Amino acid sequence: MSEPKDVRRLVEAVTGRPGYTSAVGTRVVAATPGCVEMALDRRPDLLQANGFFHGGVITGLADHAAGAAVTTALPEGRFAVTVSLQINFLAPATGETLIARARALQAGRTFGVAQVDVSSTAQGAEQVCAVATVTLRVVDLPAATRDPHTA
Amino acid sequence: MSEPKDVRRLVEAVTGRPGYTSAVGTRVVAATPGCVEMALDRRPDLLQANGFFHGGVITGLADHAAGAAVTTALPEGRFAVTVSLQINFLAPATGETLIARARALQAGRTFGVAQVDVSSTAQGAEQVCAVATVTLRVVDLPAATRDPHTA
Amino acid sequence: MSEPKDVRRLVEAVTGRPGYTSAVGTRVVAATPGCVEMALDRRPDLLQANGFFHGGVITGLADHAAGAAVTTALPEGRFAVTVSLQINFLAPATGETLIARARALQAGRTFGVAQVDVSSTAQGAEQVCAVATVTLRVVDLPAATRDPHTA
Amino acid sequence: MSEPKDVRRLVEAVTGRPGYTSAVGTRVVAATPGCVEMALDRRPDLLQANGFFHGGVITGLADHAAGAAVTTALPEGRFAVTVSLQINFLAPATGETLIARARALQAGRTFGVAQVDVSSTAQGAEQVCAVATVTLRVVDLPAATRDPHTA
Repeated sequence: MSEPKDVRRLVEAVTGRPGYTSAVGTRVVAATPGCVEMALDRRPDLLQANGFFHGGVITGLADHAAGAAVTTALPEGRFAVTVSLQINFLAPATGETLIARARALQAGRTFGVAQVDVSSTAQGAEQVCAVATVTLRVVDLPAATRDPHTA
Repeated sequence: MSEPKDVRRLVEAVTGRPGYTSAVGTRVVAATPGCVEMALDRRPDLLQANGFFHGGVITGLADHAAGAAVTTALPEGRFAVTVSLQINFLAPATGETLIARARALQAGRTFGVAQVDVSSTAQGAEQVCAVATVTLRVVDLPAATRDPHTA
Repeated sequence: MSEPKDVRRLVEAVTGRPGYTSAVGTRVVAATPGCVEMALDRRPDLLQANGFFHGGVITGLADHAAGAAVTTALPEGRFAVTVSLQINFLAPATGETLIARARALQAGRTFGVAQVDVSSTAQGAEQVCAVATVTLRVVDLPAATRDPHTA
Repeated sequence: MSEPKDVRRLVEAVTGRPGYTSAVGTRVVAATPGCVEMALDRRPDLLQANGFFHGGVITGLADHAAGAAVTTALPEGRFAVTVSLQINFLAPATGETLIARARALQAGRTFGVAQVDVSSTAQGAEQVCAVATVTLRVVDLPAATRDPHTA
């Protein structure tokens, strides 16, 4: 397993690659092996019509954080890809920032599981808006890319 | 229940409102009471690093189609909001277009359920990439907006 | 909300009624508003062929504990009925006793959500074998029965 | 893949082994590769207090049918073990018999997915009471047992 500093660098590298995750503004708040926190900020194109973060955006952030949490708990050269995801929306995500905290419950030879709490924050106050459980399979990192997580 | 023509118009109105759903290019392919088909086209900001549609985008489309399928099966003045969502990713969504077909299994007084098949298509060939089950609660449409679906 | 002592009595009354829950030997370990712990002991008819607790038994216990956790957090005269349930099996339930700890995340006017950790214990050592998230709808308790939970 | 006749014999052998599945009276109605139908009959110890089949019993039957559906679609010597399960309860299971029809959506090298419809029947009339999606991992059958399914 990598050192915490390398873990964070790795998660940031994956999160910053071109594509959906960086396009919606995802940033890494914290990353240690098995525990990852991600955030993104309110933007008109991430909301539903009534001004809350859209369920797809909430789910996408939870999914990315879950993949990073399991991947950082795996041996080097292995990464986790989402197989199934379950999410409960508990309250409208009304705040300025969306934060997902993912924790690996399992990071085994062939599959992994992470639980994720998603909150939205406004003026420092934080409210849980969703909880998710993500099931992932564990595969070899393609030698060419050496990216720890592509889900 | 509205006439099919009104049903489609309603679903298109909701889908076209400013926000996430229209920003990712969601369009209505078909809409009858309880059955809705939505699609969106490949764009760099909707993909993961390896060039497939991102899981969050797939889930967001499935969620929106599910909400529309249940809402169009409800009496006028009621709409469906997602409570929980479960999705299984079966294959990489490699194609040019993502299509979600949602069918209401239940559209009751307080709760609704929809199943959704998501496919990706390339050069006319279609492959199922995900299946989802969405649980929704049924609420009154705010008089001010008269929108059938805000989830 | 009832006093803790009444809460426990209520949960025990429901758990002891004739039917599946009492037939498999479910007992109440602890019950406070929003938090319930249930257990049942190993018996040949509760196992799979390889000697672990069966997934259906694990799920049934999680479901019952979730219903009790949400119901005990509701105002008197209301109870919670399961709408959907999601469970991840993390390890074989090899021990002598199965324990489910449920916590209500939400107990609102129309629906509730509970998370449940299920462990199996052998000789005092405890191992998590499953985690579940249960979505419930909240309904009036039939006047005739005055039972807080029939799910 | 085995011949249909062998498939049915295998599923019946697994279903009839001592343990929970046979104790609740599970019987095989039909079994072809990837498609399995199971049933069990009403009994006081399988019901909730209000006389419907208990959610744990419904889930256990769905789980067993899903495992059989995926296992029968796998090459010989491989079987499927449940990783996660999601179920929606659509209506009380009030009838005399509970029937689960499972269909494998995926039966790959490491993972499988099945969808299951569960109905209850009374006097020939059938009503869907639940739908489930089950995610399974695919493992080698222990040489000693040669059992196609132990989930």
